[in-house]
Amino acid sequence: MSTRIGILGYGNLGRGVECAIKHNDDMELKAVFTRRDPKTVKVLTPGVEVANVADIEKYKDSIDVLIICGGSATDLPEMTPKYAKMFNVIDSFDTHANIPTHFAAVDAAAKEGGKIAMISLGWDPGMFSVMRLYDTAILGNGSTYTFWGKGVSQGHSDAIRRVPGVKNGKQYTIPVPEALEAVRSGSNPELTTRQKHTRECFVVLEEGADAAKVEEAIKTMPNYFADYDTTVHFISEEEFAANHSGIPHGGFVIHSGTTGWNDENKHVIEYSLKLDSNPEFTSSVLIAFARAAKRLSDEGAVGCKTIFDVAPAYLSPLSGEELRSHLL
Amino acid sequence: MSTRIGILGYGNLGRGVECAIKHNDDMELKAVFTRRDPKTVKVLTPGVEVANVADIEKYKDSIDVLIICGGSATDLPEMTPKYAKMFNVIDSFDTHANIPTHFAAVDAAAKEGGKIAMISLGWDPGMFSVMRLYDTAILGNGSTYTFWGKGVSQGHSDAIRRVPGVKNGKQYTIPVPEALEAVRSGSNPELTTRQKHTRECFVVLEEGADAAKVEEAIKTMPNYFADYDTTVHFISEEEFAANHSGIPHGGFVIHSGTTGWNDENKHVIEYSLKLDSNPEFTSSVLIAFARAAKRLSDEGAVGCKTIFDVAPAYLSPLSGEELRSHLL
Repeated sequence: MSTRIGILGYGNLGRGVECAIKHNDDMELKAVFTRRDPKTVKVLTPGVEVANVADIEKYKDSIDVLIICGGSATDLPEMTPKYAKMFNVIDSFDTHANIPTHFAAVDAAAKEGGKIAMISLGWDPGMFSVMRLYDTAILGNGSTYTFWGKGVSQGHSDAIRRVPGVKNGKQYTIPVPEALEAVRSGSNPELTTRQKHTRECFVVLEEGADAAKVEEAIKTMPNYFADYDTTVHFISEEEFAANHSGIPHGGFVIHSGTTGWNDENKHVIEYSLKLDSNPEFTSSVLIAFARAAKRLSDEGAVGCKTIFDVAPAYLSPLSGEELRSHLL
Repeated sequence: MSTRIGILGYGNLGRGVECAIKHNDDMELKAVFTRRDPKTVKVLTPGVEVANVADIEKYKDSIDVLIICGGSATDLPEMTPKYAKMFNVIDSFDTHANIPTHFAAVDAAAKEGGKIAMISLGWDPGMFSVMRLYDTAILGNGSTYTFWGKGVSQGHSDAIRRVPGVKNGKQYTIPVPEALEAVRSGSNPELTTRQKHTRECFVVLEEGADAAKVEEAIKTMPNYFADYDTTVHFISEEEFAANHSGIPHGGFVIHSGTTGWNDENKHVIEYSLKLDSNPEFTSSVLIAFARAAKRLSDEGAVGCKTIFDVAPAYLSPLSGEELRSHLL
């Protein structure tokens, strides 16, 4: 029997989950839930129901896993605990500093409802997190470095667009090649914020806006840009549409550590992602964990889990025998 | 309380495990077991007992996990099932084709003894295997490529040394850079054996041996070299000792796959290792899994497990709270 999936929230991430379901034969999209008028939401999958989130409780018995595709700032802290009482849920909560609080709230709710909840899934947090765990568990005597990019930072792009005179803008986070090389060499360098990443901005100005003023406002913006070497390019709306409409991202987790009686041997472990679409890759991770959530729930597990708590075999549609024969 | 480790077999791998224990505060080396006369085996850790393997049963209650550091050809198929009846055991069985048979024998033995056994740990099988699993579970619509090297192949080095006229020899397996780049581009190329790896041999000749004959014998050796572009360098014993005494290795697991309603977006996931010492890195993986074996055994789990069956959190000395705060 297929795992019946509900999607709550139909933006880039929700649509990505819908596409990921299409690629997984053992998954079935049961319904999409929205805060908008359901009639205004057009989904890709023929025949799939779109319902208002106010009616979600009616679907309690027809959905195995609800994937909550909301934002980490305000949506998920409220939604994930709320729906973990009635569904097995998955989210991609990515405000690293608030994960312990979110975990506690979701864990209590899921246990109350006898459900499984899996939070903070995607690539960072998510696959990058599990790499940091494997790396440090294997080579405790070492250092782990995370680099992001080249890719679009949604938060920084939003910040650019709030600058007066900016009509549209996009920001790419770029790892500094020399920093990557230093880390790969195993020399365990100490790197400042500025030494690790640069920021490149593509900006469409409002008519009559002062380019120099906009550039200054961006480059000196505290938290977002002031601590980085930032480049600002002014481009036309046509160029923006042609070259900057995608949402690529990626990054690197590099760990180097030593072994041997006198630490005489050095090892470097590197994991990297190069993603054409950040939300679609994230969605593909969410669907693999939805498979795990269903299986763990069927085994009677309850409460909140992270990527650290899930044995990898639960993610694959293959059986234990198949995995051992083909992938081990 | 520390996890009390026993090491069975004291070659490069056993010594690597001993070094890894030194790097992990929650681990304690209890005893080293050998088939040789214990008096002839000198270990690095002060005060640690060396015993003959014939006496191993006496240590049944003083060892939490026995790490079996034997060869995959003849040692492990016999040893791991035998000792899984009396100890929690870990091995690095790496004959991929025979893993299902080994798993079945070890699983039956471990269940009979009420113990946990973990097999085929290291980097391939091991970390590379779990990457192949994550990659294919996330992007099922894609292809996975494994490259080995640059590094020393023990099997191929042994094969060189069996050629008449060869005094000493070492073989490096090297991924072909163009093949790596083609795979990284996401073009999903079909690659022959010859297109993926080259083989480079460093040979010290016996006095009076015919270099041309030796080169020909190596390059045409079936299974080992005939299907590869092979280079043979003849060097002096001094150069061999100075530059080819290490056991470095490494490799790459690269997966590319597509997402989107019409597969319009491409993603590339790459995991790579660059290891100064193959046996010491493998040993570090074994010790992380020894931690997991102890914990799973304490929870009452029995039977044979692979890297696919172990939730990553079990590998780390950190608590769940610490992992979520620092690594997620």
